[in-house]
Amino acid sequence: MKNKIDTIKTLFEALPFIKKFNNEKIVIKYGGSAQTSQNLKIGFVQDIALLNLVGMKPIIVHGGGASITNLLSELNIDTKFIDGQRVTTKEVLRVAEMVLSGEINKEIVSLLNREGTKSMGLSGKDGNLLEAVPKDFKTFEYTGVIERVNPEVLNGIIDNGFIPVVAPIAGCASNTYSGFNINADIAASEIAIATNARKILFLTDTQGVLDKDKNLITTLSLEDCDRLKSDGTIYGGMIPKVDACITALRGGVKKAHIIDGQQEHSLLLEILTSSGVGSCIEL
Amino acid sequence: MKNKIDTIKTLFEALPFIKKFNNEKIVIKYGGSAQTSQNLKIGFVQDIALLNLVGMKPIIVHGGGASITNLLSELNIDTKFIDGQRVTTKEVLRVAEMVLSGEINKEIVSLLNREGTKSMGLSGKDGNLLEAVPKDFKTFEYTGVIERVNPEVLNGIIDNGFIPVVAPIAGCASNTYSGFNINADIAASEIAIATNARKILFLTDTQGVLDKDKNLITTLSLEDCDRLKSDGTIYGGMIPKVDACITALRGGVKKAHIIDGQQEHSLLLEILTSSGVGSCIEL
Amino acid sequence: MKNKIDTIKTLFEALPFIKKFNNEKIVIKYGGSAQTSQNLKIGFVQDIALLNLVGMKPIIVHGGGASITNLLSELNIDTKFIDGQRVTTKEVLRVAEMVLSGEINKEIVSLLNREGTKSMGLSGKDGNLLEAVPKDFKTFEYTGVIERVNPEVLNGIIDNGFIPVVAPIAGCASNTYSGFNINADIAASEIAIATNARKILFLTDTQGVLDKDKNLITTLSLEDCDRLKSDGTIYGGMIPKVDACITALRGGVKKAHIIDGQQEHSLLLEILTSSGVGSCIEL
Amino acid sequence: MKNKIDTIKTLFEALPFIKKFNNEKIVIKYGGSAQTSQNLKIGFVQDIALLNLVGMKPIIVHGGGASITNLLSELNIDTKFIDGQRVTTKEVLRVAEMVLSGEINKEIVSLLNREGTKSMGLSGKDGNLLEAVPKDFKTFEYTGVIERVNPEVLNGIIDNGFIPVVAPIAGCASNTYSGFNINADIAASEIAIATNARKILFLTDTQGVLDKDKNLITTLSLEDCDRLKSDGTIYGGMIPKVDACITALRGGVKKAHIIDGQQEHSLLLEILTSSGVGSCIEL
Amino acid sequence: MKNKIDTIKTLFEALPFIKKFNNEKIVIKYGGSAQTSQNLKIGFVQDIALLNLVGMKPIIVHGGGASITNLLSELNIDTKFIDGQRVTTKEVLRVAEMVLSGEINKEIVSLLNREGTKSMGLSGKDGNLLEAVPKDFKTFEYTGVIERVNPEVLNGIIDNGFIPVVAPIAGCASNTYSGFNINADIAASEIAIATNARKILFLTDTQGVLDKDKNLITTLSLEDCDRLKSDGTIYGGMIPKVDACITALRGGVKKAHIIDGQQEHSLLLEILTSSGVGSCIEL
Amino acid sequence: MKNKIDTIKTLFEALPFIKKFNNEKIVIKYGGSAQTSQNLKIGFVQDIALLNLVGMKPIIVHGGGASITNLLSELNIDTKFIDGQRVTTKEVLRVAEMVLSGEINKEIVSLLNREGTKSMGLSGKDGNLLEAVPKDFKTFEYTGVIERVNPEVLNGIIDNGFIPVVAPIAGCASNTYSGFNINADIAASEIAIATNARKILFLTDTQGVLDKDKNLITTLSLEDCDRLKSDGTIYGGMIPKVDACITALRGGVKKAHIIDGQQEHSLLLEILTSSGVGSCIEL
Repeated sequence: MKNKIDTIKTLFEALPFIKKFNNEKIVIKYGGSAQTSQNLKIGFVQDIALLNLVGMKPIIVHGGGASITNLLSELNIDTKFIDGQRVTTKEVLRVAEMVLSGEINKEIVSLLNREGTKSMGLSGKDGNLLEAVPKDFKTFEYTGVIERVNPEVLNGIIDNGFIPVVAPIAGCASNTYSGFNINADIAASEIAIATNARKILFLTDTQGVLDKDKNLITTLSLEDCDRLKSDGTIYGGMIPKVDACITALRGGVKKAHIIDGQQEHSLLLEILTSSGVGSCIEL
Repeated sequence: MKNKIDTIKTLFEALPFIKKFNNEKIVIKYGGSAQTSQNLKIGFVQDIALLNLVGMKPIIVHGGGASITNLLSELNIDTKFIDGQRVTTKEVLRVAEMVLSGEINKEIVSLLNREGTKSMGLSGKDGNLLEAVPKDFKTFEYTGVIERVNPEVLNGIIDNGFIPVVAPIAGCASNTYSGFNINADIAASEIAIATNARKILFLTDTQGVLDKDKNLITTLSLEDCDRLKSDGTIYGGMIPKVDACITALRGGVKKAHIIDGQQEHSLLLEILTSSGVGSCIEL
Repeated sequence: MKNKIDTIKTLFEALPFIKKFNNEKIVIKYGGSAQTSQNLKIGFVQDIALLNLVGMKPIIVHGGGASITNLLSELNIDTKFIDGQRVTTKEVLRVAEMVLSGEINKEIVSLLNREGTKSMGLSGKDGNLLEAVPKDFKTFEYTGVIERVNPEVLNGIIDNGFIPVVAPIAGCASNTYSGFNINADIAASEIAIATNARKILFLTDTQGVLDKDKNLITTLSLEDCDRLKSDGTIYGGMIPKVDACITALRGGVKKAHIIDGQQEHSLLLEILTSSGVGSCIEL
Repeated sequence: MKNKIDTIKTLFEALPFIKKFNNEKIVIKYGGSAQTSQNLKIGFVQDIALLNLVGMKPIIVHGGGASITNLLSELNIDTKFIDGQRVTTKEVLRVAEMVLSGEINKEIVSLLNREGTKSMGLSGKDGNLLEAVPKDFKTFEYTGVIERVNPEVLNGIIDNGFIPVVAPIAGCASNTYSGFNINADIAASEIAIATNARKILFLTDTQGVLDKDKNLITTLSLEDCDRLKSDGTIYGGMIPKVDACITALRGGVKKAHIIDGQQEHSLLLEILTSSGVGSCIEL
Repeated sequence: MKNKIDTIKTLFEALPFIKKFNNEKIVIKYGGSAQTSQNLKIGFVQDIALLNLVGMKPIIVHGGGASITNLLSELNIDTKFIDGQRVTTKEVLRVAEMVLSGEINKEIVSLLNREGTKSMGLSGKDGNLLEAVPKDFKTFEYTGVIERVNPEVLNGIIDNGFIPVVAPIAGCASNTYSGFNINADIAASEIAIATNARKILFLTDTQGVLDKDKNLITTLSLEDCDRLKSDGTIYGGMIPKVDACITALRGGVKKAHIIDGQQEHSLLLEILTSSGVGSCIEL
Repeated sequence: MKNKIDTIKTLFEALPFIKKFNNEKIVIKYGGSAQTSQNLKIGFVQDIALLNLVGMKPIIVHGGGASITNLLSELNIDTKFIDGQRVTTKEVLRVAEMVLSGEINKEIVSLLNREGTKSMGLSGKDGNLLEAVPKDFKTFEYTGVIERVNPEVLNGIIDNGFIPVVAPIAGCASNTYSGFNINADIAASEIAIATNARKILFLTDTQGVLDKDKNLITTLSLEDCDRLKSDGTIYGGMIPKVDACITALRGGVKKAHIIDGQQEHSLLLEILTSSGVGSCIEL
């Protein structure tokens, strides 16, 4: 009997969220360690399938750092780093594109297919989704900065009942270069803005934003973010994540979440339970 | 003045074809040397763009043999051949998928984008387009045979105004394996049948089907094909091409063409002029 | 942590049911003691609201026995019973119609409104939903038997995004009489058949169908029903309930359930958990 | 032959009105003695059916004064009047709602059904059509004042080809009370405004607005109304009728009519003949 | 008061007909003396406008005999008659086409425009509506027999809210001749069949079908027609009219009427009153 | 081989024009000597058919000067000219309307039908397309000036897949006169403006606008037109053509062309080749 009461409680706690996000687009940046274990991968696509079933419209943007590095090393391609950032030579771009659009993208699509969920993989080149310009061609070569998002292709995919899965490769706005490697976090934010997504979630390798005592901060305002960045509480790899959140919020997305990709089903818990599991930033 | 008369003649010769194929799906198998020179590549996407503009619905299915072989060798992956056919080990499949879905597919999409033509690249895994079973897993491992085509994803893409570009990788019908490498000619035929395409064209490395004296045969019936195969006039690499044509025709496609991918704009000439440039097979 | 795992388990157990019943019509006969306590009433409309939110299309058919009896006694109207069945005189019909269409029907609509769920109350007269003929006018007067169901009005209501709530009063097929009182269980079955509902559930005053030892039988075939009726295991008030189930199943409804209206949220538990809480009859 | 000429004259006189009101919503407040005789009732629904057939969109709002009083007395419920206005106690509300939504509403629907005209009865609670607040809860208890009209439900009913018949009961805007009894004349005006109705007609117990010599005034401006109210020509029960007309006109309705519900087919004559039969008020 | 009762009676008598013919196509052959007096012309378009307003879909097919003869004589073109039928030489066809398509057709359209009714004139050449073959080219030259009716153009016109007005000129099925003059009665029947019209009416110069004593026969079966033709009661110019009716009825039209075009508003009286004014033939 | 290269060149030169004018309305004023030879007529409808096939939406407005004059003389109708402009008496109007709407209009429709292109002829009276007022009734009688264009009828025809062919006869805006003869050039310009046409072309009897040395001017600005008119380079019959162009351009049409109707397929060459064959005026 205890069990039944819990069941009812859980279903009813999820109710207002299912209602609120019905037919809303939700962008999920999928990356890091959530992409490494087979269990976590399966849990992730199950979460996506469930969210889709109850009426939400997920858009997945994935990264692929480790696999790119692996293939570069298998091919004995040296990669230079300037100011801690990889230089995307023509060779590196070719490898990145093959890994992102050809391997990881299709793996996610395959896993979603197995869950019985229709999905379609694409890169920023398809349907001209992402158009970029070089960040600084002399220094970083084929590393791009998004200039324009053309969301029609995504809307068409969603209207046809498919979940789009996006690889962070962009076409060239001026048709001068063959394409660009772009930052997946920023791609997710820009896509969320261009598709009028309601919510964006970043699956990361930590619990969320932590305070000085390494405890999770569950809710932050933009002011909190500024303060914590300036006093050094938010630092290192968390800074670009938080900045991507801020970009999305300033562009009209209602809430941005940073959650732990290593915790099974953290995505579902964050969206469908009132307590959540990570950090939520809102204006 | 001579020039103007020629212009008018050309436009009017194209007229009945434009009319006949208006709104009809046309599958083009793009492969071999047509994929190697930059000039031929650009000519190809220009032809596709023009056909699309005048109301046809092209569906591109591409191959990628040479690039796969190159990357395998860069990675020092040995490939075994049995009865002249490559064994697709797990490693080979990974390389084939990266090259096909991640490199060649996106290159075609990029080139079409530059022509101002909206296109969308996908592999047989996307939207569950192609489901395959192993040809003979013990011998050929991840080499697949198409079990089912789900054309909804292609129809959605076409209805949304995009040209689909398909890489010949299939998902697994039983969800037992991670995917399969499949023959692009057969994939093109099966896709043509499943989408009720009106016409299928194969871009090859020769002029078309040749007779004993190495002259082009412009029109063949199925009976001609049988006869020429049994008397050895059609032999070697031409046999599977002709067989793919026959499959398509038996499945309801009206005409199948084998044309020279090395001749610039052969695609356009074959479709929009009465003389054509290659061999046409019909029931 | 235990809690989170349970939450995920519950959500994922509900998943296949949400998927299976997406966009399917589900008829719920709401009656008996489930209509008496305020707590049970609120629990009921919450269940309906949740089912609606996750994509099902509930159709509520309600009874109203006790309230009719009360108003008859307030008005000092004597009611005759023949063979245990009430004779619906003109006066009784007027009272029944006022209570059913004017009081109970609107109370359910009001409660659903409060949950933020759009609903529309109607009787079998509205849009000519239910047309009846007298059961035996000489004996039972305005007690009717359904002759025809016109489901267009229900389909219109559902397509406009409202949940229909139906009072068991019918119009007269021949326009001879002003209307009829009809059996709500049978009305529910006939409506389920006419609207191609996937499932029908009867909220009753017992746990479900019980065996000789008063233990719940969770699954029954039609043969089981016949056997248990002939050996007296199913007897009394359970017989017409089971018969209404059988009618629905023979008419194309996939499953019929008899559940305990006195157990809070039994409706939700029966539909969204694999164990269920009552008896399920299927062909 | 005389007869044929008259027939043609009649049909052609009706022509411009049929054209003018094609596809226009027309609200009819149906009440008073027009609701008492069976002949008048049948004449009324015939008029509605004809107007509907020739392309108008009637919306009926009915009252029910006498029947409520009767049932209250059958139940020995005393009703208090303050300043000539009934106090709607909880008991009175229950009776009013049963009579209005359960008896009168369904009788009108039944009569329309018999004319072969599809109609749907509803109260202000259905689809949240009417939301009210208490007029003065301490004094008048469940007597409500309309706070908001949600016309979607009516539009849906009309678009599905049904004629809506509305009982003047409202839901509670704040969900604090179970519902309210509201004035049917005002409900009609507010519904006419919210649905962008072209015309509103009030069926009353007199010929229309009368001058000092008790002769009918066929056309009045708002200024005329003000003057006749202040000089006492318009007095008593006619004042709230005229006020309801003024409200509708100020809210965008083009013309408001007060006609004699006791004259057979006065509704038809007022709408389809140039002379009309009652009083017409316009801005 | 008498007047009002008559008004109501007339409107209600018309009611069942308005209902029955709502959205139904009705073909009217307009010819003979109904086309000569200005009064009758205006009465005719008023009738058409009224029928259109109350929801019917009139299709007008007109003749033009007298005007053609006049222009031929103004141009001193001799016309030969063989077996009482005019030989349509090339010159005669040119004159007939100019009169029918250019003069009479546009006059009817203009008169309908003045009534505020949107209409569109066309000949059988427009949209390839009527395709004919020569009746007997050697003898009658450009006199044609309808080979095929392509009703799409009429359906498009009607769906866009216009009344089509058709001149009895046909294109040539084989594209050998420039066009044909065709019989307007037969054209009306064939158009009624091809558009699934419910009813066809012929406006003629007599009251309808008369019996031996020159009294009007109001209703005839096909058997009556056969009998009256063989006993000579139906003779002369009435025979082709009756035959055109029979063709229409055999092709699926429900009722065919022959009415007096010289009686003002006979069209309206025949359709909207139960007694009618002419002869009605049905299967 | 030379031939193939030319073919490809021609098709690709036409490409950007086909793209640019896809789904755009293009008004063609068809008149003068282009209407006289059978070869030119057929060439004209072939051009129209081709433009239509590749996705443009042609609207033809034709004249008919010579044929009207011929019929007037056959009928011995004298026509007066005042200031070089014909007085349209009632008799002249009748003749003009018969020739334009009944002869020329239907001839163009017939020729288009033979090319397999669906077309529909109409005059300005049909669907009330053109409403005119007298230019100066006392002097010029039934010569009209366009007061209003109602383009709905054209849009309906185009949406239904037909090419509209318009005769320059107008209805009367005030319903005082039976109709008007109007200038076809001006009618074409007004129709181009009212339908938001992209381009307008006038087929004339000269090459285009010529300079002092009788050489063709291929491109003109509005300023050029003004200058050339004031210095007498543009003179005589070219002035009203140029003025009609200017009217169209000021009304929102992007480009206006004056081309040689006597040169075969000049229409096609002007639209689908970059060099063109006549004069193009743009803002």
